[in-house]
Amino acid sequence: MAEYRILKTEGRAKRAEFKTVHGTVQTPLFMNVGTVGAIKGAVSTQDLEEIGCQVELSNTYHLHVRTGDKVIRELGGLHTFMDWHRPILTDSGGFQVFSLAGLRKIKEEGVTFHSHIDGRLIFMGPEESMQIQSNLGSTIAMAFDECPPSKAERAYVKDSIDRTARWLVRCRDEMKRLNGLEGTVNPQQLLFGINQGAIYDDLRIEHAKVIRELDLDGYAVGGLAVGESHEEMYHVLEEVVPYLPKDRPTYLMGVGTPANILESVERGVDFFDCVYPSRNGRHGHVYTKHGKLNLMNARFEKDMRPIEEGCQCPACRRYSRAYIHHLHKAKEMLGLRLCVLHNLYFYNHMMEEIRDALDAGTFAEYKKATLAGFEAGEDA
Amino acid sequence: MAEYRILKTEGRAKRAEFKTVHGTVQTPLFMNVGTVGAIKGAVSTQDLEEIGCQVELSNTYHLHVRTGDKVIRELGGLHTFMDWHRPILTDSGGFQVFSLAGLRKIKEEGVTFHSHIDGRLIFMGPEESMQIQSNLGSTIAMAFDECPPSKAERAYVKDSIDRTARWLVRCRDEMKRLNGLEGTVNPQQLLFGINQGAIYDDLRIEHAKVIRELDLDGYAVGGLAVGESHEEMYHVLEEVVPYLPKDRPTYLMGVGTPANILESVERGVDFFDCVYPSRNGRHGHVYTKHGKLNLMNARFEKDMRPIEEGCQCPACRRYSRAYIHHLHKAKEMLGLRLCVLHNLYFYNHMMEEIRDALDAGTFAEYKKATLAGFEAGEDA
Repeated sequence: MAEYRILKTEGRAKRAEFKTVHGTVQTPLFMNVGTVGAIKGAVSTQDLEEIGCQVELSNTYHLHVRTGDKVIRELGGLHTFMDWHRPILTDSGGFQVFSLAGLRKIKEEGVTFHSHIDGRLIFMGPEESMQIQSNLGSTIAMAFDECPPSKAERAYVKDSIDRTARWLVRCRDEMKRLNGLEGTVNPQQLLFGINQGAIYDDLRIEHAKVIRELDLDGYAVGGLAVGESHEEMYHVLEEVVPYLPKDRPTYLMGVGTPANILESVERGVDFFDCVYPSRNGRHGHVYTKHGKLNLMNARFEKDMRPIEEGCQCPACRRYSRAYIHHLHKAKEMLGLRLCVLHNLYFYNHMMEEIRDALDAGTFAEYKKATLAGFEAGEDA
Repeated sequence: MAEYRILKTEGRAKRAEFKTVHGTVQTPLFMNVGTVGAIKGAVSTQDLEEIGCQVELSNTYHLHVRTGDKVIRELGGLHTFMDWHRPILTDSGGFQVFSLAGLRKIKEEGVTFHSHIDGRLIFMGPEESMQIQSNLGSTIAMAFDECPPSKAERAYVKDSIDRTARWLVRCRDEMKRLNGLEGTVNPQQLLFGINQGAIYDDLRIEHAKVIRELDLDGYAVGGLAVGESHEEMYHVLEEVVPYLPKDRPTYLMGVGTPANILESVERGVDFFDCVYPSRNGRHGHVYTKHGKLNLMNARFEKDMRPIEEGCQCPACRRYSRAYIHHLHKAKEMLGLRLCVLHNLYFYNHMMEEIRDALDAGTFAEYKKATLAGFEAGEDA
């Protein structure tokens, strides 16, 4: 069991630290997404250290189908493979199975699907997901769940959360068994459960009450940011977070914009992850305290300012908007890399500011001022 | 006029230093190619500093057609634009005009061609090339020349070198005029002439005798590594280098493999440039003291050694062949970047070893041992 210690609260917002076998992290935090064990945009683990990343997130499904978790285990696990020695969280593979992979069949045992790489048939259930994540040796493994669409029918969602709850027991038991085996990469691997229930408050709460009984290392809220409105998402958080254990970290999966994060910290969330900063960076869209800029825009052709004045990221310390605009127009990879580095730094740095504000008891003011800055735009 | 000072010689091989307005460089040296003001493979000027690059090379034609030299001049010149403060050499644009651009017409005045970006008709002659390079403000400008195929007919080559010699006078006069204008980005811009003559020894020598009279800052041997054999190339160097001024740097354009460089240093060459290290790196081909490796090969799947034991490049200091193999298979940009960084480091580091050997008077032994290592391969 990891140690989660709340240092300060402000309303429902929590400032905490979380001690793991790969070091202690400060929450609230943003996990930087490295799908196949590398951040898209030519960003290395050395870069992650330099831009203040605390937890790297890798995708179980992708690593399973390419190179393979058994090979990675043989090579010493994912930490050794990537040369990253801070915490890693791996997802369960479930989300990719339901969104990427072809021709799925969901049964009580698990899911059968086709690899998106070579089409071969793969079976994955709770045990298989735990075995793969154990081979990778991540710090935190995520439970194998079904993530129904947020607009799914109530009856379907009810069946789905019941199955996800049964799967969670199997995940916990299998993780316990794997952690006890000789030669396990990380015998202190942690398990986070995932709350589902789409946008049905009562199903969310019912499911939370069931899964919290399993006394896991942390709990995630899953199945949000998949089509519902921001208001619906905030509402679900308001309803369900009070039913998750306060003495464990709460992880909101796949969220989101800087504004989403501020609103969700206020509602008690500790952990976040999202592909926005890297995906947007690859398209030349960069985050600033005055909102998002599209560096492809012709108005940046002669703009010799950094993306953001005072920013200490590797892009802003040396390069101008004009140069990065030129790189994107010329389709030079360096343009993508600089924007991704800036965006990840922006997210990590904003989390640091959030933690400082919580420490100082000024989160409410910080949130208000930061959202106002985003709204006002650059000409304010 | 820059200051070129020979520190040591061994046979025809020269160990020298070259003082410019952007700092003094140590020769023999390899220039790292950043076509549009960035090295392909997401490599920044900060990276170039870290891997020991002394001179960056940018392409005049590419910068002229995209973003434009006038914009770059307005922004303070290429050094400011890229945030690179060591020497930059710009080519003349000639090579790209003759190889990339469409529908050319060569006249005494210059060349008319279509931009490969938007098809617009562009005229470039000696004066235009100097004006563009003056706008960029590079440390060293290259003369505008025609680069006939190495297998071109003798009569064609004779006409071509005569025209190139006439163009060189115009380049020199225009550069002098531009350097004297108020507001010029780099009023101490240097000019290197280019020797042509395909593989006809007598034409090469005749042309060298004409152009050396212009007393330029340096002289290049152009039109090699474009189809002739290595032996033909070495033969041309043996014949023509003695006719180029010994008290000026000699630059062999677009060359080459590590072995080519060793052979050419022996024949009196100081400056090199080549796209091989970056192009090969992007395909997972990496240089080592035991020859080239293709990291896409399945035999590297579980190879936890660095690309080269003891190498101090950013890839070898942290990452394994297995990890880089995985990145290439998964088409992650980081794989390209790591291989390009390694290859450029390999080239820059080999030049450092060559300089050390020349300083110690042991270049012949160094060359022999290094070539033997390449030949022997990894299992030796």
